Amino acid sequence: MQAETVPQVSIVMGSKSDLETLQEASDVLDRFGVAHEMRVISAHRTPEAARTFALSAEGRGVRIIIAGAGKAAHLAGVLASMTPLPVIGVPMTTSDLGGLDSLLSMVQMPGGIPVATVAIGKTGAKNAALLAVAMLALADTALRSRLVDYRKGLSDEVEQADRALQAVRRPHAGV
Amino acid sequence: MQAETVPQVSIVMGSKSDLETLQEASDVLDRFGVAHEMRVISAHRTPEAARTFALSAEGRGVRIIIAGAGKAAHLAGVLASMTPLPVIGVPMTTSDLGGLDSLLSMVQMPGGIPVATVAIGKTGAKNAALLAVAMLALADTALRSRLVDYRKGLSDEVEQADRALQAVRRPHAGV
Amino acid sequence: MQAETVPQVSIVMGSKSDLETLQEASDVLDRFGVAHEMRVISAHRTPEAARTFALSAEGRGVRIIIAGAGKAAHLAGVLASMTPLPVIGVPMTTSDLGGLDSLLSMVQMPGGIPVATVAIGKTGAKNAALLAVAMLALADTALRSRLVDYRKGLSDEVEQADRALQAVRRPHAGV
Amino acid sequence: MQAETVPQVSIVMGSKSDLETLQEASDVLDRFGVAHEMRVISAHRTPEAARTFALSAEGRGVRIIIAGAGKAAHLAGVLASMTPLPVIGVPMTTSDLGGLDSLLSMVQMPGGIPVATVAIGKTGAKNAALLAVAMLALADTALRSRLVDYRKGLSDEVEQADRALQAVRRPHAGV
Amino acid sequence: MQAETVPQVSIVMGSKSDLETLQEASDVLDRFGVAHEMRVISAHRTPEAARTFALSAEGRGVRIIIAGAGKAAHLAGVLASMTPLPVIGVPMTTSDLGGLDSLLSMVQMPGGIPVATVAIGKTGAKNAALLAVAMLALADTALRSRLVDYRKGLSDEVEQADRALQAVRRPHAGV
Amino acid sequence: MQAETVPQVSIVMGSKSDLETLQEASDVLDRFGVAHEMRVISAHRTPEAARTFALSAEGRGVRIIIAGAGKAAHLAGVLASMTPLPVIGVPMTTSDLGGLDSLLSMVQMPGGIPVATVAIGKTGAKNAALLAVAMLALADTALRSRLVDYRKGLSDEVEQADRALQAVRRPHAGV
Amino acid sequence: MQAETVPQVSIVMGSKSDLETLQEASDVLDRFGVAHEMRVISAHRTPEAARTFALSAEGRGVRIIIAGAGKAAHLAGVLASMTPLPVIGVPMTTSDLGGLDSLLSMVQMPGGIPVATVAIGKTGAKNAALLAVAMLALADTALRSRLVDYRKGLSDEVEQADRALQAVRRPHAGV
Amino acid sequence: MQAETVPQVSIVMGSKSDLETLQEASDVLDRFGVAHEMRVISAHRTPEAARTFALSAEGRGVRIIIAGAGKAAHLAGVLASMTPLPVIGVPMTTSDLGGLDSLLSMVQMPGGIPVATVAIGKTGAKNAALLAVAMLALADTALRSRLVDYRKGLSDEVEQADRALQAVRRPHAGV
Repeated sequence: MQAETVPQVSIVMGSKSDLETLQEASDVLDRFGVAHEMRVISAHRTPEAARTFALSAEGRGVRIIIAGAGKAAHLAGVLASMTPLPVIGVPMTTSDLGGLDSLLSMVQMPGGIPVATVAIGKTGAKNAALLAVAMLALADTALRSRLVDYRKGLSDEVEQADRALQAVRRPHAGV
Repeated sequence: MQAETVPQVSIVMGSKSDLETLQEASDVLDRFGVAHEMRVISAHRTPEAARTFALSAEGRGVRIIIAGAGKAAHLAGVLASMTPLPVIGVPMTTSDLGGLDSLLSMVQMPGGIPVATVAIGKTGAKNAALLAVAMLALADTALRSRLVDYRKGLSDEVEQADRALQAVRRPHAGV
Repeated sequence: MQAETVPQVSIVMGSKSDLETLQEASDVLDRFGVAHEMRVISAHRTPEAARTFALSAEGRGVRIIIAGAGKAAHLAGVLASMTPLPVIGVPMTTSDLGGLDSLLSMVQMPGGIPVATVAIGKTGAKNAALLAVAMLALADTALRSRLVDYRKGLSDEVEQADRALQAVRRPHAGV
Repeated sequence: MQAETVPQVSIVMGSKSDLETLQEASDVLDRFGVAHEMRVISAHRTPEAARTFALSAEGRGVRIIIAGAGKAAHLAGVLASMTPLPVIGVPMTTSDLGGLDSLLSMVQMPGGIPVATVAIGKTGAKNAALLAVAMLALADTALRSRLVDYRKGLSDEVEQADRALQAVRRPHAGV
Repeated sequence: MQAETVPQVSIVMGSKSDLETLQEASDVLDRFGVAHEMRVISAHRTPEAARTFALSAEGRGVRIIIAGAGKAAHLAGVLASMTPLPVIGVPMTTSDLGGLDSLLSMVQMPGGIPVATVAIGKTGAKNAALLAVAMLALADTALRSRLVDYRKGLSDEVEQADRALQAVRRPHAGV
Repeated sequence: MQAETVPQVSIVMGSKSDLETLQEASDVLDRFGVAHEMRVISAHRTPEAARTFALSAEGRGVRIIIAGAGKAAHLAGVLASMTPLPVIGVPMTTSDLGGLDSLLSMVQMPGGIPVATVAIGKTGAKNAALLAVAMLALADTALRSRLVDYRKGLSDEVEQADRALQAVRRPHAGV
Repeated sequence: MQAETVPQVSIVMGSKSDLETLQEASDVLDRFGVAHEMRVISAHRTPEAARTFALSAEGRGVRIIIAGAGKAAHLAGVLASMTPLPVIGVPMTTSDLGGLDSLLSMVQMPGGIPVATVAIGKTGAKNAALLAVAMLALADTALRSRLVDYRKGLSDEVEQADRALQAVRRPHAGV
Repeated sequence: MQAETVPQVSIVMGSKSDLETLQEASDVLDRFGVAHEMRVISAHRTPEAARTFALSAEGRGVRIIIAGAGKAAHLAGVLASMTPLPVIGVPMTTSDLGGLDSLLSMVQMPGGIPVATVAIGKTGAKNAALLAVAMLALADTALRSRLVDYRKGLSDEVEQADRALQAVRRPHAGV
């Protein structure tokens, strides 16, 4: 059984169909031991819930919001407009336009209210969590160490793949 | 058996292959009890039928036209040019360009003849019907109530998904 | 002096820099004698004002909302999420991406909350007003007549230009 | 004074503002001695004029139609739907999307009704006329000769520019 | 056994993998009884064959060339540069960019050498053949009749689909 | 005279031609009293300087990096790959593709190394600074207050513009 | 067993998931007898390995680098910034944006540091190898001969496909 | 007076209007002392000149071809199809689509015939020359030294700009 703690990060998605993508963010936060919550809140279908969430998040102890949404993806911007907390936006892949619509709807925020936008889809969800970790690590030495270790792990993986490929593929004359 | 009534909304598609998409619009109108018809009329292959339809729609009692078409999607614009009724355009998803062609062909109408364009594909078809309902509700209190209720239902669904996710996913320290 | 009346249409812009574009909508409504107001309300910088506006618009007698915004253009969608009134969206031209960002941020609304999107920029502003007129004309015979007359005027202008061009440019052998 | 003759090509534009672009087509046809007319007909603002034009063009002796239009550029497709004559489409440059909207609205015609689409803007207007000439030259030996000569002229111009550049810019060691 | 005749139309593809798409063009020409040939000629891999083909096509009696190619689709333009015959370009669908690359590589020809470009993929292949028929019909009354009949057939199909849909879907109150 | 202090934010640009855009970020940080530096470091022309900068930034006391670059905009990603500090990317407007190239080169970072991307151009530069402020405000109550005040100021500006417009433009019947 | 030799070409990929694509490059180099190596090096996850690789490549005898990467594809540019060797970039196909992101991130390099970019995906990988061969052939007569032969082979394949198609498809009247 | 020498690089442009852009390439080659020529040859208007040029370039001693062209930019591909020499393509900026058309027409070459594509416009022209220098430097130690020096110069310029900016802009508290 997990001990309930105040969530430092709140992962909000515009639709439950976005869960598979945003699970990537949750998994990364779990790995870093960052307490977080996952919420389904739609900027368009539950505007009052979005407002209540945004206005109360800071008071509840949330420090960073990760918002994933697709198409005319307003969720991140709507939340950002109602809280001084940093908001990270994850543009969902879309079947028609590949996610270009989600991306432009998130990243092109007008002056005054930024959304920290990351890549489209699962890669973005993972990176949103890592960005949140980097922000939290500014005031958390232990977390910073874990981030450096994580990066080391990424590096090790690539280097291992490199060695494996070189073992198979020695330079040769080819003919 | 259903009573035949004058259709308030006419859903027109450029090809019978668009039926699956536009069925979404019909389903919404059914849910709201809005009498409607579905037609297959091609701006390009049956221009005379398109003209006859557009010129006679208002006289037949039709109040709003929903037109779905793909690629160089002229149907909505062609109908709009021949009737003072509001015309809502649904851009079809296309296999090559994802529907960007349909969208631009519909939404970028020249000054004088607007087409009320909604999202690409099934989402757009559903929303076209909701937009028609909103227009009709301007003069129909009962319909307005049903629209408010529908919105409430959408909100409830999201909130239920939110509660379900939170039940599974309590904030925790992760490690 | 103009008599003050309840506005039937509310033209809302996300920034005062959008006024030049949306003036086109106001001019058309003036021409049709449709009482309207013009507001500057930002979905992101004045979210509370946006909410108050959207929740009270119907009660104040507003029947249709025209919302113009640029880039990550959330204004129309945010208003639409809080009122059952029809919302027409005008995507602003943007210096970087030409307005494609504004367009996708408006038109690709998720299922449940439509925005009736028109063309990018001034053409769209003008057409937004004409679309509002068409909606109002559903229950206003005099307005419908004026719309038909307006269309006739458009047609006359084109035909006059056609005659003028033909007078200058008679078919000839060219050599 | 020019002798009036039956126009072989009809150049139709959706707005008189397209005249500067389509003048390029007219100039080429003049150069080839191809009798032609220029018309302003809007698919959206004068749909009846468009229909009358399209249905009567063949009977009047017109053999090829060149249609230029911008944004949601339906003119070429609308005319093509009502005449068996070949229709050549010239997508106008647009200030917002550069003409990509005009291009996709023209070229992506559905199966059954083709529009022979050429490049965006003035280059396209010029090439539309040359394409018309190539079609007419199939049954007109003199015109074919003039087309071959014209091509020769193009080639000569490039070769002259090449010689001029080489005269200025001899290969050298550079230092 | 088929009688060998001089081909009026030559359908050329840049790769044998384009055959499935261009078969659509051949099928239409068969239906209209237009003698044609199909060729595999690559602008890039067989430039000499392309040149020989283009320079000799007119002399062999070919009257119209249909060229299909994908990606950096130069085939149509390369052939057009070496023959005064009308060249129709069919942009192939591409797996990465959906065919936008093929389309722009074909349609954006520089001034002097037009390519009559049609829609991306199979729809375009079919329409290329219909465009060729329309060109040939300028001097072939029987072919013109068949084209008008074909159009009538298209119209009948749509009208039949329309009647079928209306039979299923009578306007009704929905509730 | 300004007291020299350790910079909390480092604004890095790939070229001195980006200074006008990134000055917006500096102005915002000045307004918030956030000590910062401005650097010209090119990922491509001074890779060693980029490395030295990235590896030493944290040690020098820098807490957040804002990196602006254009076209194949690698600067933000290259710096992010060599420091655990949060990196905010500002895509520069480009004359050819409007900044879509800069945006995609920044935001589409692979899994593991996020860049917090904001809007294209000056709007993005301003918002990058505000995002940095929001991050720093997580552990700085005074800064948080200033951020809330700044937001209040934005809101006041919009409301003032709203009142000014309404004073000019009272709802009226228009005719 | 293959004799180990100094690799002339180094094929570097940003992720082992790119191996299937870049195998095409290796296969072509094998066919031409060009000694090469394959490496997995990530510009973002192993920046130090990338630097070490780039700085030592020339010294190890590598003459040309082929770098394949996707999304914000910085690998080719990062390597190019640290070596005077020619770097060829292969943009990977991406699931969201089709590879347009990879392409723009590679080809739009700033002045001073070019990347020789080829087509997206497997076609590009194959062509990257052929481009490397063409560069090496500048100083290797035997390799030049093999390149000419390879081209001849390509040409033969197309001509064989042409003959096969003509054998099946003789020109005929069709009816 | 300049000594005439065999050109190692041939800079070919599709139109004399491309000269201003390609002058950048010539200036770089001059700086490196690489003998070169500049030619105006159009793939479409002078196909025979293009063929003669491509087939004879290698025999004349040309080692690398730089080809700049715009819109449906076939020049580089057409030349590449007829010579085993490496061909570098420079996509011209276009007024309508910004050069995206030129870029895709060049870079998306089919398997077998690569074009080494660089950035759109003047940046690309400059980089094309640097890429040519890098290729030639593979067998020319002096040239390699000059390339390394040039890179050093680029680096120095950036570092100087960096120092200048830091002199003006010392980190400070801002308030």
